[in-house]
Amino acid sequence: MTTNPHESIHYPEINLPPRILLGPGPSMVEPRVLKAMATPLVSHLDPTFLELMNNTQALLRYVFETENKLTFPVSGTGTAAMEAAIANLVEPGDPVLVCVNGYFGLRLADLAERYGGQVGTITCPWGEVFSPGEVNDALNQRPAKVVAIVHAETSTGALQPLDEIVKIIHQHDAIVIVDAVTSLGGLPVRVDEVGIDLCYSGSQKCLSCPPGASPITLGPKALEKLRKRKTSVPDFYFDLRLLEKYWGEERAYHHTAPISTIYALYEGLRVVAEEGLENRWARHRHNAEYLWSGLEDLGLELLVTESYRIPTLTTVRIPAGVIDLEIRRSLLKEYNIEISGGLGELAGKIWRIGLMGYSSRKENILILLAALGKML
Amino acid sequence: MTTNPHESIHYPEINLPPRILLGPGPSMVEPRVLKAMATPLVSHLDPTFLELMNNTQALLRYVFETENKLTFPVSGTGTAAMEAAIANLVEPGDPVLVCVNGYFGLRLADLAERYGGQVGTITCPWGEVFSPGEVNDALNQRPAKVVAIVHAETSTGALQPLDEIVKIIHQHDAIVIVDAVTSLGGLPVRVDEVGIDLCYSGSQKCLSCPPGASPITLGPKALEKLRKRKTSVPDFYFDLRLLEKYWGEERAYHHTAPISTIYALYEGLRVVAEEGLENRWARHRHNAEYLWSGLEDLGLELLVTESYRIPTLTTVRIPAGVIDLEIRRSLLKEYNIEISGGLGELAGKIWRIGLMGYSSRKENILILLAALGKML
Repeated sequence: MTTNPHESIHYPEINLPPRILLGPGPSMVEPRVLKAMATPLVSHLDPTFLELMNNTQALLRYVFETENKLTFPVSGTGTAAMEAAIANLVEPGDPVLVCVNGYFGLRLADLAERYGGQVGTITCPWGEVFSPGEVNDALNQRPAKVVAIVHAETSTGALQPLDEIVKIIHQHDAIVIVDAVTSLGGLPVRVDEVGIDLCYSGSQKCLSCPPGASPITLGPKALEKLRKRKTSVPDFYFDLRLLEKYWGEERAYHHTAPISTIYALYEGLRVVAEEGLENRWARHRHNAEYLWSGLEDLGLELLVTESYRIPTLTTVRIPAGVIDLEIRRSLLKEYNIEISGGLGELAGKIWRIGLMGYSSRKENILILLAALGKML
Repeated sequence: MTTNPHESIHYPEINLPPRILLGPGPSMVEPRVLKAMATPLVSHLDPTFLELMNNTQALLRYVFETENKLTFPVSGTGTAAMEAAIANLVEPGDPVLVCVNGYFGLRLADLAERYGGQVGTITCPWGEVFSPGEVNDALNQRPAKVVAIVHAETSTGALQPLDEIVKIIHQHDAIVIVDAVTSLGGLPVRVDEVGIDLCYSGSQKCLSCPPGASPITLGPKALEKLRKRKTSVPDFYFDLRLLEKYWGEERAYHHTAPISTIYALYEGLRVVAEEGLENRWARHRHNAEYLWSGLEDLGLELLVTESYRIPTLTTVRIPAGVIDLEIRRSLLKEYNIEISGGLGELAGKIWRIGLMGYSSRKENILILLAALGKML
């Protein structure tokens, strides 16, 4: 190995193209949030940082619409929050029901198995959603202690109604884990009103922050399950009983929080609160409708029935004869626009277009529609 | 819950004091790195980001002094890299030897137990280091497949010589995991020369980046152990067989990388390469000696014998009659200087003074010594 001081000449300064991020995440980061990222650090145990932690938690309760005390950002990206949920609430041997109608449902099932759950799944076609009756039947046939379901399936664009399903899950004495990665901050999640026991999300979707600090909230039943565990959580980094002491009143050192990313999340949440949740939901809805009608005007077919469409992530069928990668590469190369292809069984069949947070702006829709219009 | 758009009036703009960070981490972040953090995002699968990943990996190999292909930043803080190491290399039932002479040795033992290892430990007083003979005796008495040891114990300030110990571990057909959280970038770690099988570190210490992307590197024997696992790794987020596909040639989506923190790490590594490893080590050594003699001039006693002192983290005994918290609070309040107290059995007995990366500058030492001189 060389220790030559001139080693760096091979590594250029960061100089990246100005992407218009209209994929399934990350979304474009709010300029105010980028500025917050450049703030010099205080220590993760500095009294001023502890206060910032408190305020960040309060703002997270606001966007989750919850009074849950244990509400905080997990020190990792969305998958880390998903893993924290499963690792803590699924004990070896626990019967678990996972509702799988897309890639992230599959990931939840994989995780529940890794942590020793006796996993049963119900499925429906990708792009469709589950009815309360289907969940009820599944739990009648095979009781479960934990049910995991995705609110807004990033891989399909389908929005799962939750109110009735959560009631049914509770009637079966199970607790429910809800993946709100693509919904939180872009459409109502209503943790307390719906009765969600554990909900998690990501920072880089509708909150328009950089990835790396992922919101999670636990209600009383989830906490009770956590406290009654017979075995220790295998993970240390995601052990909620330890994290509760760090993010709770004790502030006991557990790990070094991603300080700058917490700054960013705090600033991003301030932006959300200033806009107001209801205004923000309305903006996402309004812009989504504008996109949908524009895509239909281009002769494109949307994958998901309008009543179950996620306003933050639209899926559109790739027309026959059109080569997926060719279009996406041209969009990126010629117009700096990023949209995404399908995942899993929808790979090559759909495009995924995100309008999340700061990316959800009319000008972005206009340029995308114009570019697609030229190409198709 | 209120959805009042004026909710945010309770949450002020980020306005933090300009701390001089002389604790055990985070260190002060290089201004160039802060600037990199504010770079607008491209997607984690953007071709330009993939190139940045390649360059970041090459620069990490440079600071680790290794040719190991599987060298990359884990998407979390230092503890996440520690967990990735243990979760992947310790299988249930594996006999493991952990060398414990401080808080982070204890954490390694805790983690190895969580992942089902049959953990044996050897201990020596906090502030001292292990001899090759002690490790040899322990492995003769109780063979192990994996040995974990801390290079620079952040809780005590003791620097563990590794060359002979690693040879002995290999003679016993075990692999060695080395915690280089407080050493990488501040003093030689020499992964290939020493023969370390798995080495991990943090970004917020001697690399002077924000926390959230933690370097790890695996040599051939560690990879072989990983590939021969009989059970799957319980973790998904830290599963190195999946992470290898994301950070390797396939670039298969696994999770969203903490993009901005990778920008920061890349820029921080460029700074390291421009200074040159040897110059950087010499600077840390030189400044540490300046601090040590200044502390001794104040009549303070250092915890660790000079030959085993970490140049990046100095531990000093709190003199009789001096109240730990009173001094630290005054340093913070009156001079914006952060130093840290002891952890575990050294709590209340020592101060920990870090001179890492951008914090390791003469002017910082001067102000700390002057402030301490006024107070003591």
